[in-house]
Amino acid sequence: MVSATGFFTFALRIKPMYRTHHCGALTEKNLKNNVTLSGWVQRLRNKGFIIWVDLRDRYGITQLIFDEERTPKMVFKTAQTLGREFVIQVVGTVIERESKNSNLTTGAIEVLVQELKVLNEAKTPPFTIEDKTDGGEELRMQYRYLDIRRNPVKEKLMFRSKVAIEVRNYLSNQGFIEVETPYLIKSTPEGARDFVVPSRMNQGQFYALPQSPQTFKQLLMVGGLDKYFQIVKCFRDEDLRADRQPEFTQIDCEMAFVDQETILNQFEGLTRHLLKEIKGVEIDSFPRMSYDEAMRIYGNDKPDIRFGMTFCELNAFAQGKGFSVFDSQELVVGIAVPGASEMSRKEIDELIEWVKRPQIGAKGLVYVKCNIDGTYKSSVEKFFAPDDFDTWVHAFGASKGDLLLILSGEARTSRSQLSALRMEMAERLGLRKPNEFAPLWVTDFPLLEWDEESKRYHAMHHPFTSPKPAHLDLLKTNPGAVLANAYDLVLNGNEIGGGSIRIHNQQLQSEMFDLLGFSKEEAQAQFGFLMNAFQYGAPPHGGIAFGLDRLVAILGGEETIRDFIAFPKNNAGRDVMIDAPAPLEKKQLEELFLLSTAKKE
Amino acid sequence: MVSATGFFTFALRIKPMYRTHHCGALTEKNLKNNVTLSGWVQRLRNKGFIIWVDLRDRYGITQLIFDEERTPKMVFKTAQTLGREFVIQVVGTVIERESKNSNLTTGAIEVLVQELKVLNEAKTPPFTIEDKTDGGEELRMQYRYLDIRRNPVKEKLMFRSKVAIEVRNYLSNQGFIEVETPYLIKSTPEGARDFVVPSRMNQGQFYALPQSPQTFKQLLMVGGLDKYFQIVKCFRDEDLRADRQPEFTQIDCEMAFVDQETILNQFEGLTRHLLKEIKGVEIDSFPRMSYDEAMRIYGNDKPDIRFGMTFCELNAFAQGKGFSVFDSQELVVGIAVPGASEMSRKEIDELIEWVKRPQIGAKGLVYVKCNIDGTYKSSVEKFFAPDDFDTWVHAFGASKGDLLLILSGEARTSRSQLSALRMEMAERLGLRKPNEFAPLWVTDFPLLEWDEESKRYHAMHHPFTSPKPAHLDLLKTNPGAVLANAYDLVLNGNEIGGGSIRIHNQQLQSEMFDLLGFSKEEAQAQFGFLMNAFQYGAPPHGGIAFGLDRLVAILGGEETIRDFIAFPKNNAGRDVMIDAPAPLEKKQLEELFLLSTAKKE
Repeated sequence: MVSATGFFTFALRIKPMYRTHHCGALTEKNLKNNVTLSGWVQRLRNKGFIIWVDLRDRYGITQLIFDEERTPKMVFKTAQTLGREFVIQVVGTVIERESKNSNLTTGAIEVLVQELKVLNEAKTPPFTIEDKTDGGEELRMQYRYLDIRRNPVKEKLMFRSKVAIEVRNYLSNQGFIEVETPYLIKSTPEGARDFVVPSRMNQGQFYALPQSPQTFKQLLMVGGLDKYFQIVKCFRDEDLRADRQPEFTQIDCEMAFVDQETILNQFEGLTRHLLKEIKGVEIDSFPRMSYDEAMRIYGNDKPDIRFGMTFCELNAFAQGKGFSVFDSQELVVGIAVPGASEMSRKEIDELIEWVKRPQIGAKGLVYVKCNIDGTYKSSVEKFFAPDDFDTWVHAFGASKGDLLLILSGEARTSRSQLSALRMEMAERLGLRKPNEFAPLWVTDFPLLEWDEESKRYHAMHHPFTSPKPAHLDLLKTNPGAVLANAYDLVLNGNEIGGGSIRIHNQQLQSEMFDLLGFSKEEAQAQFGFLMNAFQYGAPPHGGIAFGLDRLVAILGGEETIRDFIAFPKNNAGRDVMIDAPAPLEKKQLEELFLLSTAKKE
Repeated sequence: MVSATGFFTFALRIKPMYRTHHCGALTEKNLKNNVTLSGWVQRLRNKGFIIWVDLRDRYGITQLIFDEERTPKMVFKTAQTLGREFVIQVVGTVIERESKNSNLTTGAIEVLVQELKVLNEAKTPPFTIEDKTDGGEELRMQYRYLDIRRNPVKEKLMFRSKVAIEVRNYLSNQGFIEVETPYLIKSTPEGARDFVVPSRMNQGQFYALPQSPQTFKQLLMVGGLDKYFQIVKCFRDEDLRADRQPEFTQIDCEMAFVDQETILNQFEGLTRHLLKEIKGVEIDSFPRMSYDEAMRIYGNDKPDIRFGMTFCELNAFAQGKGFSVFDSQELVVGIAVPGASEMSRKEIDELIEWVKRPQIGAKGLVYVKCNIDGTYKSSVEKFFAPDDFDTWVHAFGASKGDLLLILSGEARTSRSQLSALRMEMAERLGLRKPNEFAPLWVTDFPLLEWDEESKRYHAMHHPFTSPKPAHLDLLKTNPGAVLANAYDLVLNGNEIGGGSIRIHNQQLQSEMFDLLGFSKEEAQAQFGFLMNAFQYGAPPHGGIAFGLDRLVAILGGEETIRDFIAFPKNNAGRDVMIDAPAPLEKKQLEELFLLSTAKKE
């Protein structure tokens, strides 16, 4: 490896390389080049006198050709022993391919192999390493390292990395400082359940893993950092619902000397930047809607506004007409499904069964088909005249060909049921287009919600959320009516971010803890440091946190987050690949004072 | 707020702002501007008829002036009630300052205040919010949110954020993908102690917090991601030495299809980039040194090479001359301290006491003053002639005016003691210049080190480090002599990064666990998933991890990491601000099966 010009010391540093090119690099421009490639055997075609191998790495696939006549005998022999997913290194010459593949960057060439080295053998993988694999979820998770070799998973992880970089660069350019807050903190058991960490140096004491860096980011504002962000893991020990993870990632942000408007604009900017840079979608200004309005016209505080089917309340038009099912209820509310009047009786019956499922829980479903010819077909035509239906259609703003679907019952419940039905109809009609993006700010959330079980108020957002200044007086007289300076950013029917203006006054924070049922001692023990900090010159501040896993999934046009996480846990909170959690050794338990002191003798 | 052009809907969105400018923004260009500022009261000077306030925020300081004649009476009155660290908002006019301060960006102007709002009051802080504070370490940590308001701390946190961004952008541009690996993993108690997390859903089972993402990044290589990095928190439950934290941050990196040379070049590139972008220092190519050489000439595997004083071994010249202290020892070794021959007898006696301290543990110290006039003064002049000293001076490459300091004893111990002395002398002579940067690769580490206590080998780096291929045979015959493809990056006498080429062969990995005293069952239980993965086509791979806390501190020209961490723990592993760890509630302990099941009835 001594170069012609004699740079011996330099040449000494060059060791034989594993590759001169990636597997996605070679094109016709490289014809006749002598190249070294390394990668995995994706596919083998053995014609006896000729063997083709698709060699794969992160960057692409290059076709190798082993030819009985042109490849050294020993090399050809070794090639015959190769199997799927073997790791090999080859040296060869780039030649033109006979049957070109225009779908591949490298589709015009192949590499005629002269040297072959098997870097590592491979057992037959338990599922195929293809875009459409034959492996089930559980098997894929157990062999996640093989699953990651598949393009769809690999690309999702790369996509996530790209989104994170864009977030960081945008926020840094906007003057935000990324600060790492601690992971070993203190348990605050009033909210969701904490994961805890026993302390070896302090018997009987525990750290907790953060559910979010909430109090720390507020302290950074008290500390004058002005604009903070962090992409950070958070932890919640909850019974896992589908598509929830015990550890998840937040884009956590906080600003000082801001009102809600500044925050909404700032993070609208971030979201707009991501949509543009990542998806090439330009969206002007995001619409806004109060929580109250969202609940009334979508039955949901995170409405998908990519499509219509907004709610129409029919109490004024449908009650008092003798249909007792409607008359007895708090709310009669429906949606007009565009162009669905052609649904068959069977399909509608199936829909009625669908809303009656326990997950939805409706008692029944009234339909009105607005036929193209101007007539109606309805399950309640005994009770209502065509004139009534005309009025309804007018109220809905519906057209001929639409299908009205109407529920009745307790207002809150009916809205929630109708919301589920609306989403289902949108799904069936293909209205939830993964590459269409409809962001929405939902604002003016209630500060508190009443919990029937514990007979007390819970914070709707969290205990640090500021009431609207105009509602401060209501705190004592009618806490349930107090609105908060809290806001959610909704994208395509998913809450991707949520935040609030925080309380920065010690007295108000203390009152808030009272309202939430904390004793003075509990409040002091858990959040004394924060209330103390508020006495030393806390600025007005507020912030937001985005769920990165969800955000990335939606930007990626997917509904589930799992494949955007390199090593996710299953629904029982287990990592099936490494088999965790697992028992500890006795010595560890002893050191942590976790072995029962009452030993059996 | 309706603009002249009538954009009413737009204007509606603009609420009264907390500030039109930051406190570091206003200059003579803004004279006569009407501005709104918010911030903290840094300093107050009350002359009775005039009050000056230094208003501080993250961005700087602006002088406010309240003037009995020009400021509204009520405003002036309120200004009289202000105290240090009050949070205020003012509206006023930018005017020219009489006595300009050229040290401040804003030093040519002041703001004549017309409106003043106290946003939050402040109790007198427990220490001064000044660059040089009167607060001790413990107090500063307890009120860390106030400490962060001080420039030196705030700037260190901003500096850290900048370094992290540069690291990410550099690595991303080089094709590295940032992948988040899990925090809730499995305990592998053979290394350092794990922090563990009891599982509520799996009685008696625990997660562990990662000491590093080592096995996961290797699995990502098996998964074909090719180039991985992550800036990630790691956890070690060790008895804390000064300047160690139970949670710390790593820049964790791994590459596939690489040899050691590629990795060294890649991360030399990263370090060079940081030195250039962050410090404006350009360094060509980093020197390299084997572990063996580093130990021989610096007595240390992380030598500070900003200065000389390399070791000179004197056995050949100093033994057999009748000085029994030297004659009886394995090694006689010294350093030549440049220009230190003028040290007084008293100073040298003090130095002798210094090396005899238990922390160093030397039995004594021989000195030879090489006087300017060519004569010698030495503690061993009874045993050696000036000719001997001439020989020594020649061996040392010393000059007139230097001071030779010589230790003798068991080789390893003496080198370690002399290394400490070398650093001490450099410190005293001011040779450890914080803004001089001397990186160094130390390579060819031993694979294993013998542990006398447990009578077995330990992995010097970790159990996944690959032996040098040429030394594979030695593994069975003389494991202690096997060198590894392991390397450390040293900067100014600190190990800032370390890594290795990994084992990617199941068989070799299994043998390695045997050598380290794992039973087959232990190896399988703890690392079965990794050895299994190696059977499905693992590519050759290797990587490195940098300690971000340390790296940032050194780049920042500091020796201690604590102020580069927003919320550090103290030497007992406690967060004194939030008072963690802390006891849990009984309900939490029960849910986690941590209460003794033997209840007292």
